[in-house]
Amino acid sequence: MQVHEFYSSLAIRNDNKIVVLLIDGLGGMSHKDYGYKTELEYAKHPNLDRLASQGTTGMLTPVLPGVTPGSGPAHIGLFGLDPISFNIGRGVLEALGIGLVPEPTDVLARGNFCTVDSQGAIVDRRAGRIPTQVCEERLALLRDIRVPRADIELHAVQDHRFVLRLKGADLDGAIANTDPGAVGAKPKRAKALAPRAETTASIVNAFVDQALDRLKGQSGANSLVLRGFSMLPNIPSFCELYSLRSVALAVYPMYKGLARTVGMDTLECGKTFSDQLRTLETHWDNYDYFFIHYKYTDSCGEDGDFLSKVNHIETLDSCIEALVRLDPAVLAVTGDHSTPAALKSHSWHPVPLLLVSSTSRRDGSTAFTETVCARGALGNLESKYLMGLLLAHALRLDKFGA
Amino acid sequence: MQVHEFYSSLAIRNDNKIVVLLIDGLGGMSHKDYGYKTELEYAKHPNLDRLASQGTTGMLTPVLPGVTPGSGPAHIGLFGLDPISFNIGRGVLEALGIGLVPEPTDVLARGNFCTVDSQGAIVDRRAGRIPTQVCEERLALLRDIRVPRADIELHAVQDHRFVLRLKGADLDGAIANTDPGAVGAKPKRAKALAPRAETTASIVNAFVDQALDRLKGQSGANSLVLRGFSMLPNIPSFCELYSLRSVALAVYPMYKGLARTVGMDTLECGKTFSDQLRTLETHWDNYDYFFIHYKYTDSCGEDGDFLSKVNHIETLDSCIEALVRLDPAVLAVTGDHSTPAALKSHSWHPVPLLLVSSTSRRDGSTAFTETVCARGALGNLESKYLMGLLLAHALRLDKFGA
Repeated sequence: MQVHEFYSSLAIRNDNKIVVLLIDGLGGMSHKDYGYKTELEYAKHPNLDRLASQGTTGMLTPVLPGVTPGSGPAHIGLFGLDPISFNIGRGVLEALGIGLVPEPTDVLARGNFCTVDSQGAIVDRRAGRIPTQVCEERLALLRDIRVPRADIELHAVQDHRFVLRLKGADLDGAIANTDPGAVGAKPKRAKALAPRAETTASIVNAFVDQALDRLKGQSGANSLVLRGFSMLPNIPSFCELYSLRSVALAVYPMYKGLARTVGMDTLECGKTFSDQLRTLETHWDNYDYFFIHYKYTDSCGEDGDFLSKVNHIETLDSCIEALVRLDPAVLAVTGDHSTPAALKSHSWHPVPLLLVSSTSRRDGSTAFTETVCARGALGNLESKYLMGLLLAHALRLDKFGA
Repeated sequence: MQVHEFYSSLAIRNDNKIVVLLIDGLGGMSHKDYGYKTELEYAKHPNLDRLASQGTTGMLTPVLPGVTPGSGPAHIGLFGLDPISFNIGRGVLEALGIGLVPEPTDVLARGNFCTVDSQGAIVDRRAGRIPTQVCEERLALLRDIRVPRADIELHAVQDHRFVLRLKGADLDGAIANTDPGAVGAKPKRAKALAPRAETTASIVNAFVDQALDRLKGQSGANSLVLRGFSMLPNIPSFCELYSLRSVALAVYPMYKGLARTVGMDTLECGKTFSDQLRTLETHWDNYDYFFIHYKYTDSCGEDGDFLSKVNHIETLDSCIEALVRLDPAVLAVTGDHSTPAALKSHSWHPVPLLLVSSTSRRDGSTAFTETVCARGALGNLESKYLMGLLLAHALRLDKFGA
């Protein structure tokens, strides 16, 4: 039995509200230029520290020790699902990122326009990072391509990137990348990785053949490669699993999309954390579970901008009182993964967690930092267990066994 | 391979003795009326604190994070078995609680007398909580009921509660509750949850039909409902698994029964902790593993009586020297689950653990409290791993691999 099925078998209804404040890329790494502190250790956040002293702290390991997650697995884990079993492929994630809502029968792939020479070998894998406008023009050349047994949709993302969506019966996403991953090589034919995907591979190749005909002669962006073929895994919804009316307050489309995969509603909520909190307040009575996604910490980490990440943590801290005033039965503050400025990327480092509830066992934590949380009473848990803790503290899990 | 099978494959014999002192419902929760301390933090227990300083501490998670266990799963985990795989149903537990020793082929259910109106709809689910004596009288009316393919036993428990035991070949416990769980509804027919239980369901219905005939016309307690149909899981014994001659010193029948399910002997041991320790001393040479069950902390937690739980912890602490003097090779002190007075029920909070042995790695713990143990060197373990630690510290586990 998977962990979400076990928790689901114990779930009961009540009126207690759960809020998860997700600070994207929250965890950091000791930075030699800042006294070997992390961003969270360097920042001043008296309000988060006070919450830590009123609750219990711990660490979340997004997937397994040492594993750096993409945004997909990192969120799937926080939503209580095993991120290895419920892997969201790149094609699906790219689609979610532009606001598409894939059907479980669709196959999605991330497409890149590239530039090939007269022999068909790739000379520029990103087609000179053409503007999105040019990407749109190239896609317009391809939109009326028809193939047997599937409908094709093409959606521009940004620069040279687009999403290919195949709609039809009996499609399968087990198809290898056509991107050879190197200049000098030719794009590969789509190849099924399992017999059940043979038909889909032939559909993809029929599309690519016609596309290449139409792109021939264009100056740059005259070919394309596809990768991350995938289908939306069959994910049960929060409402079915836990009888939770749930909503995500996220600014970026991809996080809204990820939340929708587990059956959450999404709401337009402006751009700033204060906007998000105002939306939360307005809709407080309509939901049981609120997922607030704060993006900017991750972006600064990716940029290697230690001090900006510090600033965004401090901004968030200064607004958090409005959230506390709503008095949720359970408030968890954590991240989906670490994004240390020192690494300029996601990382595998565990993520600090604080959990405040009237049912908390206070553990003597006096601050919300990686070092304090690593000694917290919740210990180091795989993210997929957070959901069980949230439900328990909200008294929404029945006793197991007599 | 399950964890008990793996440990079993490494088990070796020697003369080192293991003692587990199980303080039922030991773990607590921060209580706002007592300076946000838990019962264990509030109590004075210098002897347990000294043991902590001589050993290693940690926390046990009974089942999984957030999961509140019943007594069955909580003990099964401490006995080294996965509590989700070896789930003991309510019927079996109820039988163990009155000292029955079910055969693995028996089906057991918890029965309640209830009162129905002339249409057969329930008007009182507990039949006015009739005295146990009346329960006995009603059962006497039903004892000579005969049905094909099974023998029936009926045992009074307390008030309106009784145990139904079916004995026969090819019985199966996959049967839904006949208790509709609400006043105004009629008791349901027994229904098989799997084809293999069809015969058993028809046996149950044949019994109930005759029982209702005989109860008709009684004033109150004129009907019955059944729930928690279950069979004893096929549990290997400590002796087979680990070559351990093991004994439980428990006052309450249910805990003796749980211990017998893993092949432990049980001994009459009086009512108080001092009585239990005297019994231990008398039988010291006859066993390798001693399980001492101290009940009163749990009862006080269930009653919401913080200070009584504190007192019982202090009483236990004051007697513990007699146990230490026996000089077991390994002494573990822990709980089966938490029962915070603030919640008046079992809870999901992890349980403190201390383990003292000449093979301990001292971890600098200076007290036996939730907060100290949460920072202890054993970390936070699922209860099912305790058995491996006990055997290891007693040098009863061979090296794995070359």
